[in-house]
Amino acid sequence: MKTKQDIAGPAVVVKPGAKLLLSGIDPRATAGLVKAEAKAETERDAEAIDKLQDRLYAEGSRALLVVLQGTDTSGKDGAIRAVFNRTGPIGVVVTAFKAPSADELAHDFLWRIHRAVPAKGMIGIFNRSHYEDVLIAKVKKLAAPDVIEARYEQINRFERHLSETGTAILKFMLHISKDEQRQRFDERLHKREKQWKFNPGDLEDRKLWPDYRAAYETMLARCSTEHAPWHVIPADRNWVRNHAIGRIVRQTLERLDPQYPKPDWKPEDFVIS
Amino acid sequence: MKTKQDIAGPAVVVKPGAKLLLSGIDPRATAGLVKAEAKAETERDAEAIDKLQDRLYAEGSRALLVVLQGTDTSGKDGAIRAVFNRTGPIGVVVTAFKAPSADELAHDFLWRIHRAVPAKGMIGIFNRSHYEDVLIAKVKKLAAPDVIEARYEQINRFERHLSETGTAILKFMLHISKDEQRQRFDERLHKREKQWKFNPGDLEDRKLWPDYRAAYETMLARCSTEHAPWHVIPADRNWVRNHAIGRIVRQTLERLDPQYPKPDWKPEDFVIS
Repeated sequence: MKTKQDIAGPAVVVKPGAKLLLSGIDPRATAGLVKAEAKAETERDAEAIDKLQDRLYAEGSRALLVVLQGTDTSGKDGAIRAVFNRTGPIGVVVTAFKAPSADELAHDFLWRIHRAVPAKGMIGIFNRSHYEDVLIAKVKKLAAPDVIEARYEQINRFERHLSETGTAILKFMLHISKDEQRQRFDERLHKREKQWKFNPGDLEDRKLWPDYRAAYETMLARCSTEHAPWHVIPADRNWVRNHAIGRIVRQTLERLDPQYPKPDWKPEDFVIS
Repeated sequence: MKTKQDIAGPAVVVKPGAKLLLSGIDPRATAGLVKAEAKAETERDAEAIDKLQDRLYAEGSRALLVVLQGTDTSGKDGAIRAVFNRTGPIGVVVTAFKAPSADELAHDFLWRIHRAVPAKGMIGIFNRSHYEDVLIAKVKKLAAPDVIEARYEQINRFERHLSETGTAILKFMLHISKDEQRQRFDERLHKREKQWKFNPGDLEDRKLWPDYRAAYETMLARCSTEHAPWHVIPADRNWVRNHAIGRIVRQTLERLDPQYPKPDWKPEDFVIS
């Protein structure tokens, strides 16, 4: 039976190998969610995630990696705050991947990614990720086509390795409309405390919108796997985005069901002087 | 005029060079604080710290390093949660220093510390720190006396370098009574979800209580400086501990007064198509 608890709202899980058109997913979808209820539920999910992470840490044998991808202004930071601030910086490590350094470029593209995966017991969040190497790298032709072509399978093998060695992986593509992005850029242009986030170069990426969409669709088709599924998250409404991600993260941790380890001692073995 | 805003409660700032006896500071001190009010104030401070960190990040030229030291069960994790969860994992990086690895031991003792200092715009928190190298290392004679003796000044030079290059430093020693520690260990022995935190070896450290106190007192006398002051935080009461730390962190960030940078463009320069 599907209960309310099982509904992740309007998120779309990409079936392995399935070709999906982003134009078929409404960025403003709510799947019947009501704002106030959804926000309250997200807070409860964040609390539950905090408790589950404590168990994950105590158990000490597995980790969770959350990959966030999405165009500028798609709300990656906002989603992290809504879902993971309750857990806080002790249990969660966020890595924001920028343009690679000279040292990083001197290695294969997964080298810096591997260094940043979460330790056992931790939740790791990638704000952008190795998927930039098949997104911006493809759209801006930063590598030869056959090099990029090979990366999809290289990524799948890498993620399979992480999965086999104890890291659960969730991937979220934050899906906003071009119109919503215009409004958010407009806000960055005019709001004093948001202006620092505006980078004129971001408008160049906006001109390449159709190319990015195509690159995203290829990525979703090639790299959604059983062990590391892609989810497309309608993200024009922040509260829908937060609700969907919080729900899926919580359900995943509940499925992992980490356990406090049984001590190999008895309380009565010790006298505290 | 000292207003309510300026009171950090019962925290004691160690004056550079001053010799202080821990026996003279009551771990249960409240300095007249009332629990409910203090907790509410800590929440407001945590909100303010979040906003200040956003400005620190936007400004992008300075960082804040918070060092937490204290015996087992002194509440380092709890303090981090109360003061920094509001800011969350995007703005705060926590590093818990454990026994050094072979690779770390192959370098000088500050090598791993330097690698972990916060990047510009970030708040870095050390859960334990380079001070272990003059605490446990001294008590358990992990290095020769003259090697340890030299470290106080090495630490001061290192912290001065960080301070001169843009990192503000706050150091907190969480001061609990031996009796309070007994109660907290007792809880770890018996509470199912806390048992994993109990390490029989911790009781060995407890037996060395007077030696640790002496090592702490030397550390406070030798390494409290204008640019990196030590604060002794009465920590038998969690809410007093959280309040004192939150208050001092907030005041320090307010003094730094980070500013959103002025853009070198005008909003009307751009048309978002």
